Amino acid sequence: MPYVHIRITREGASAEAKRELIAGVTDLLQRVLGKNPATTVVTIDEVDMDNWGIGGLPVAEFRAAQAQQETQR
Amino acid sequence: MPYVHIRITREGASAEAKRELIAGVTDLLQRVLGKNPATTVVTIDEVDMDNWGIGGLPVAEFRAAQAQQETQR
Amino acid sequence: MPYVHIRITREGASAEAKRELIAGVTDLLQRVLGKNPATTVVTIDEVDMDNWGIGGLPVAEFRAAQAQQETQR
Amino acid sequence: MPYVHIRITREGASAEAKRELIAGVTDLLQRVLGKNPATTVVTIDEVDMDNWGIGGLPVAEFRAAQAQQETQR
Amino acid sequence: MPYVHIRITREGASAEAKRELIAGVTDLLQRVLGKNPATTVVTIDEVDMDNWGIGGLPVAEFRAAQAQQETQR
Amino acid sequence: MPYVHIRITREGASAEAKRELIAGVTDLLQRVLGKNPATTVVTIDEVDMDNWGIGGLPVAEFRAAQAQQETQR
Repeated sequence: MPYVHIRITREGASAEAKRELIAGVTDLLQRVLGKNPATTVVTIDEVDMDNWGIGGLPVAEFRAAQAQQETQR
Repeated sequence: MPYVHIRITREGASAEAKRELIAGVTDLLQRVLGKNPATTVVTIDEVDMDNWGIGGLPVAEFRAAQAQQETQR
Repeated sequence: MPYVHIRITREGASAEAKRELIAGVTDLLQRVLGKNPATTVVTIDEVDMDNWGIGGLPVAEFRAAQAQQETQR
Repeated sequence: MPYVHIRITREGASAEAKRELIAGVTDLLQRVLGKNPATTVVTIDEVDMDNWGIGGLPVAEFRAAQAQQETQR
Repeated sequence: MPYVHIRITREGASAEAKRELIAGVTDLLQRVLGKNPATTVVTIDEVDMDNWGIGGLPVAEFRAAQAQQETQR
Repeated sequence: MPYVHIRITREGASAEAKRELIAGVTDLLQRVLGKNPATTVVTIDEVDMDNWGIGGLPVAEFRAAQAQQETQR
C-alpha cells in the first residue's frame, strides 16, 4: 500500500500522460517490492512555474540562464 | 503543535465540510495526545481527479471498473 | 480514498494512541465527506524535537520561553 | 541537494516575493550547511484560505477571533 | 526537474531495491514527460508499521483481518 | 502561519545548524511576506543517503560519478 506523490511544473501534462505516470509508478512498485497495485495511491501535483525554484531562481529564469550558457560555449 | 495535511479528490467539498475536518482533526489530536489546539495546523489539498491514481488507474476509471465488477456479481 | 499525513513531535506516542489517531481520522472523513474507510490511508511522522521549529526556535526552546513568560505574568 | 516545500495561505504573494523566498532559502542552505545551490529545489504551495486551519478554525475565522480578543483587552 | 516522494512501510527494502525505484521513477518521467533525469529528485520514506493506517487500522492489523477474510471464504 | 518542510540528506547536521535553519526560514518569511514568526512552523526531515536519488542514482553514487567527471576534465 505505497503512497507516491509526484511534483512537476505545470506545463500542460495531458490526462493521458498522467495516466501513464500512475500506471508506471504502480507497476514499478509491484515489480521491485511486490506491492499490491490495488492499494497503491499516486497523486500528481502540478506546480505553477512561479512557485518552483532551482539554483536559487524561479525555474523559467533558471532555464533561460542555462540556455544562454549553452549558447556561449 | 501538530501539523496535519489532508489530501482528497476535488469533488466539491463545501467550506462547511472543510471546517468540520479542521475542527475534528484538531479535537482528535487534543483528545488522544493532549496536543494544544491553538498551535495545531491543518491543511487540505483538493486534488484534481486526473491527478489521483489508485490501482494503477486514474480514480474515475478505477471507480467505473469497480462499479462494473459490482454489477457483474 | 483520502490520504492524511500527521506530523507530531517525537515524544513517545504509544502504539495505542497512534491506533486511535488512525481510527479517528478515518472515521472523521467518512462522517464529514462520506469517504470510504477501506481506501483511506493515514501516515504518522514522528519528528525529532531538534527538527521541529516554531516561533523561530526549536520546539524545546520555544516551550521553555513560553513557560517562563507564564511564570512572569 | 536539499528540497524545501513552503506552504502559505493564498493571499496574493507576488512573483517577486516568491522569487525572494526561493533565493533566500537557497542561500540559507548554502550558508548554514554548505548545500550546493545548483541542486537546491524550492516549491511554494499557496493554499486557499478555506483549506487552512489553525486553532481548530479556518484561518479567516481564527484571525477574526484573535482581532476581537485584541480589541477586548 | 520533477520531485517524487515515495512512502512505503518499513519492511526491509534493500539498498538495491531502492536503487531500482530511483532509476525506474526517473526513467518513467523522462519517457512520459521528457523530464531531464539530471535534475529529477526522488526521496523514499520508510514508515514504521505502527505509523501506517489503512481501513481505519494499523497496517499489520488490517492485513491480519484481510488474511482471515480470505481464509473464511 | 506558514509551514515549511526542509528535506536534506542525513549527514550529521548539528542541532545548532538546524537551529539556524529554523531561525533563518522564519525570518525570511517575515521579511518577504510579513508572516507572523509566532505561528511559523518549520520541520526538518533528514533522509538516509540510500533513500535519496538524483540523476537516476542514489546520491552517493551520483556524487562519485560527478567527482570522477571533474577529475577527467
